[in-house]
Amino acid sequence: MKNGKRLLIVGGVAGGASCAARARRLSEEIEIVLLDRGPHVSFASCGLPYHVGRVIPKEASLLVATPEVFEKRFNIRVCLGTEAVRIDRVDRRLEVKDLGTGETRHEPYDWLVLSPGAHPVKPPVPGLDLPGVFTLRTIPDTRRIKGWIADRMARRAVVVGGGFIGLEMAENLVRLGLEVTVVEMQPHVMPVLDPEIAVALHEELSRHNVRLRLNEALAGFEEADGGRLGVKLASGAEEEADLAILAVGVRPETGLAREAGLELGDLGGIRVDEGMRTSDPRIWALGDAVEVRDAVTGRWTLLPLAGPANRQGRVAADVILGRDARFRGVQGTAVVGVFSLTVASTGSSEKALRRRGLWDGPDRLEKVYLHPGHHAGYYPGASPITMKLIFSKESGRIVGAQAIGKEGVEKRIDVIAMAIQKGGTVFDLEEAELCYAPQFGSAKDPVNMAGMIAANVVRGDAGVFHWDELEGSGAFIVDVRDPAELKGGRIEGSVNIPLSDIRSRMSELPRDREIWTYCFVGQRSYYAARILAQQGLAVRSLSGGYKVYTLGKALLRT
Amino acid sequence: MKNGKRLLIVGGVAGGASCAARARRLSEEIEIVLLDRGPHVSFASCGLPYHVGRVIPKEASLLVATPEVFEKRFNIRVCLGTEAVRIDRVDRRLEVKDLGTGETRHEPYDWLVLSPGAHPVKPPVPGLDLPGVFTLRTIPDTRRIKGWIADRMARRAVVVGGGFIGLEMAENLVRLGLEVTVVEMQPHVMPVLDPEIAVALHEELSRHNVRLRLNEALAGFEEADGGRLGVKLASGAEEEADLAILAVGVRPETGLAREAGLELGDLGGIRVDEGMRTSDPRIWALGDAVEVRDAVTGRWTLLPLAGPANRQGRVAADVILGRDARFRGVQGTAVVGVFSLTVASTGSSEKALRRRGLWDGPDRLEKVYLHPGHHAGYYPGASPITMKLIFSKESGRIVGAQAIGKEGVEKRIDVIAMAIQKGGTVFDLEEAELCYAPQFGSAKDPVNMAGMIAANVVRGDAGVFHWDELEGSGAFIVDVRDPAELKGGRIEGSVNIPLSDIRSRMSELPRDREIWTYCFVGQRSYYAARILAQQGLAVRSLSGGYKVYTLGKALLRT
Repeated sequence: MKNGKRLLIVGGVAGGASCAARARRLSEEIEIVLLDRGPHVSFASCGLPYHVGRVIPKEASLLVATPEVFEKRFNIRVCLGTEAVRIDRVDRRLEVKDLGTGETRHEPYDWLVLSPGAHPVKPPVPGLDLPGVFTLRTIPDTRRIKGWIADRMARRAVVVGGGFIGLEMAENLVRLGLEVTVVEMQPHVMPVLDPEIAVALHEELSRHNVRLRLNEALAGFEEADGGRLGVKLASGAEEEADLAILAVGVRPETGLAREAGLELGDLGGIRVDEGMRTSDPRIWALGDAVEVRDAVTGRWTLLPLAGPANRQGRVAADVILGRDARFRGVQGTAVVGVFSLTVASTGSSEKALRRRGLWDGPDRLEKVYLHPGHHAGYYPGASPITMKLIFSKESGRIVGAQAIGKEGVEKRIDVIAMAIQKGGTVFDLEEAELCYAPQFGSAKDPVNMAGMIAANVVRGDAGVFHWDELEGSGAFIVDVRDPAELKGGRIEGSVNIPLSDIRSRMSELPRDREIWTYCFVGQRSYYAARILAQQGLAVRSLSGGYKVYTLGKALLRT
Repeated sequence: MKNGKRLLIVGGVAGGASCAARARRLSEEIEIVLLDRGPHVSFASCGLPYHVGRVIPKEASLLVATPEVFEKRFNIRVCLGTEAVRIDRVDRRLEVKDLGTGETRHEPYDWLVLSPGAHPVKPPVPGLDLPGVFTLRTIPDTRRIKGWIADRMARRAVVVGGGFIGLEMAENLVRLGLEVTVVEMQPHVMPVLDPEIAVALHEELSRHNVRLRLNEALAGFEEADGGRLGVKLASGAEEEADLAILAVGVRPETGLAREAGLELGDLGGIRVDEGMRTSDPRIWALGDAVEVRDAVTGRWTLLPLAGPANRQGRVAADVILGRDARFRGVQGTAVVGVFSLTVASTGSSEKALRRRGLWDGPDRLEKVYLHPGHHAGYYPGASPITMKLIFSKESGRIVGAQAIGKEGVEKRIDVIAMAIQKGGTVFDLEEAELCYAPQFGSAKDPVNMAGMIAANVVRGDAGVFHWDELEGSGAFIVDVRDPAELKGGRIEGSVNIPLSDIRSRMSELPRDREIWTYCFVGQRSYYAARILAQQGLAVRSLSGGYKVYTLGKALLRT
């Protein structure tokens, strides 16, 4: 039945390539044609910054599969340098242009898959076309950047945008010996994260001589003396550099779909159903170009990441070949390495939840912070992870998690990602049975600790307050640390009663005000809160302790 | 109501200490007394081998909490050097002996918690009491071992038992410059794992000059010349050594419970309900001394690990103080580092499942193997992880997983542990959204790959055969690797048809026999199997490829 039918796939990276290979595994009989505008198929786009920084020295390493592999192994025809120009939905054919010869032709299809990806956002400012201004999306882009740096003996670079690609580029340019400035419109880098988590990156970037210009927008580029680039900022400030990288996000590539009258979503991506099918039953779309459901909030979202794209490619192939497959949506799991730090997250951020009105919605949300060691403290080399867990205050359902540290960060986020995927609660984290030997974790793993602390809140055993709630609270603030620790700073107006003295000095506490306790990371203040609560005092403790308070303060200074 | 009531806890490590601290957080009013026979409370028993090996140089690092902390912070009385002698259930009091003075006294209780731990198994052979024969359970044990090695300038050690503690001790003795022999009764070390996974440890141990005597039992010790120890083995072989470590497992410490008439289980542990309560409603028990439910199989089991003990301590405290808490059972998640390798597992092993008749039970089980890189192959430094996933052939429910490699091993097992905890399937692993950047993972993470390969089996897309099924199979074996790869060895009797040629050379395959394909890791043979299956051939591919086959062969040589 499928004999002679033709599957045409536009875009040969990640999702498109996955779709093609999966389709061949499901059917030997159909014809499969994979088109790509660029000179490569299935290349490792997530490796591009590291190729620029010579961590991945050989360009060939980025080629996950060659056209030869596709043709010989999978019997898939690959047409590179071939641009999809127009979809003729009525006659089910695609007009394509050979970018080498300039000739156009028509490629018929029985099924069409659009995996065109996304293109870098270009802000509406002058000078974007000046030599020395780059975006990073393809292997040829890396050639241009590397060539420019070498030819000009570049010494200074400005990276516009402090997200994933911006920070990875900053790190890799530093690796090449360049002085780097990162310009970011938000008050903190990694805008996808909550500020008090992301802010720890600022110190790490500074430590590696990356200059940060936060709360600052690009106003444009102009030519400067000596063939350099003038980078003009909205505040009026200017920088000179040898090159600039534009990394202010990506936008779904929807030209082809829009022109063909396929339905688009409100966020500007192609609208697809759970089987990755567009509004035309013969056309599928996937990858960075489509809107997907956020599995946690149920809302539409854009998530231009390789993992979901690959899974969507498989789903589309399955559906095309008659199987009942469904893409489950995304939860936004992501990680980035920034010099010696790793920061990772899964599920929703507090920021995104508040923006969507979901923080104080019918399912009231709460958060806790903690700073466990990445493995047992008694084994040398433990380094702290700062974690934030977001959950339903009533049911304990996990909504999101973020973590930052030097080691073992993404491991904890991966475990919580699986818990979220399975509809897990903070009680599940509390009871999780994870690998423990002293060099790998703790008998109470950071994941367990996060669950225990959150479960205490859900059960009503331990009310918390947060670093941003102090002002005007009217609470009586008790610092339960040992006096020696106060040298490193303290919350203004707090009274110091060390945990060990709290039972004997209880009479010093007012009974007509809320008592808010804090310590360095939040553990001793929780113990203190439990002692006081049992004496009938209204008490809460500072989640994440003075350490999170300090992060919040650092944020106010940016 | 609780005023003046008394909680008495026997055993101050892990579970006992957790129970005490948790109970205090729940009630300021009760009296809490923690007894321990030893000189320490709440020490890091999992760190003992690393203290012997000077990785943890200071003994004080092993003291997670001191009696002073318990007394000052938690208002918990700690009695060290105090042995529990007899439970008087009628009068609700415990006879205890001060090991310093030899005096006995009675400690009354309203609630009694038994957390006595487990003691090292001592095989019934002569010479166990000779100087130089050690077990490792406490901090004083490390002192004795360290002192003996220093005093005797020990050069050779025999470790009896190749499980967790045996291998950790072997590594740490090598670290001290000793020549080490490990004696293990099973054909492979880490008997808790399946042989074809554990066997990779043999090469690693040999590479570090650890001599292995497998399939070999201890027959006894005797004095040898020069104050050395003669180690006699069941095969008649003998070794001389300066010291021997007995690490052949532990047995629940049940003397007190048995004498008091508390119910014990068939495996020799104290029987408790989900609230950790023994057959006496006033007495709880937890930790290494109790039998627990295997959450995967529903059977009783012994799992002497710190993580479950800690959680049980919390559950017991909750129940004692009137809360509805339940211990969910265990799934056997564990990890061990052996030189540069990490091996980890969660859920049941094939071995244990077969022994219990659960492999071919009503829920038929299957397994797959894979060898993914620990992160993207195009980023330098990727090292392979060998994984085994066990699942229900019908439903895809995950039953167990094992993994071995240099990096990122326990991370994948932790994610699968969470999936098992939540009743997840291989389809959940397939769809898992995990952290991906090239230095941390892959767009298709090893966990995704394991899920995809297993899901192919469950869906009937790709039948597999296993390394131990070749003999007498009558199948036509096709090696689909490139000819150059065959130099490194091949399966006898196989025919080489590279994957890229399989479509054109299909006529060489018989239609009246099953075709079994294989390659190096199992990916190309799966592709080949898909091609052939679609031509109506009965085909299966070798799960885990020639690499697992080689591991199996290595096993036969031991």
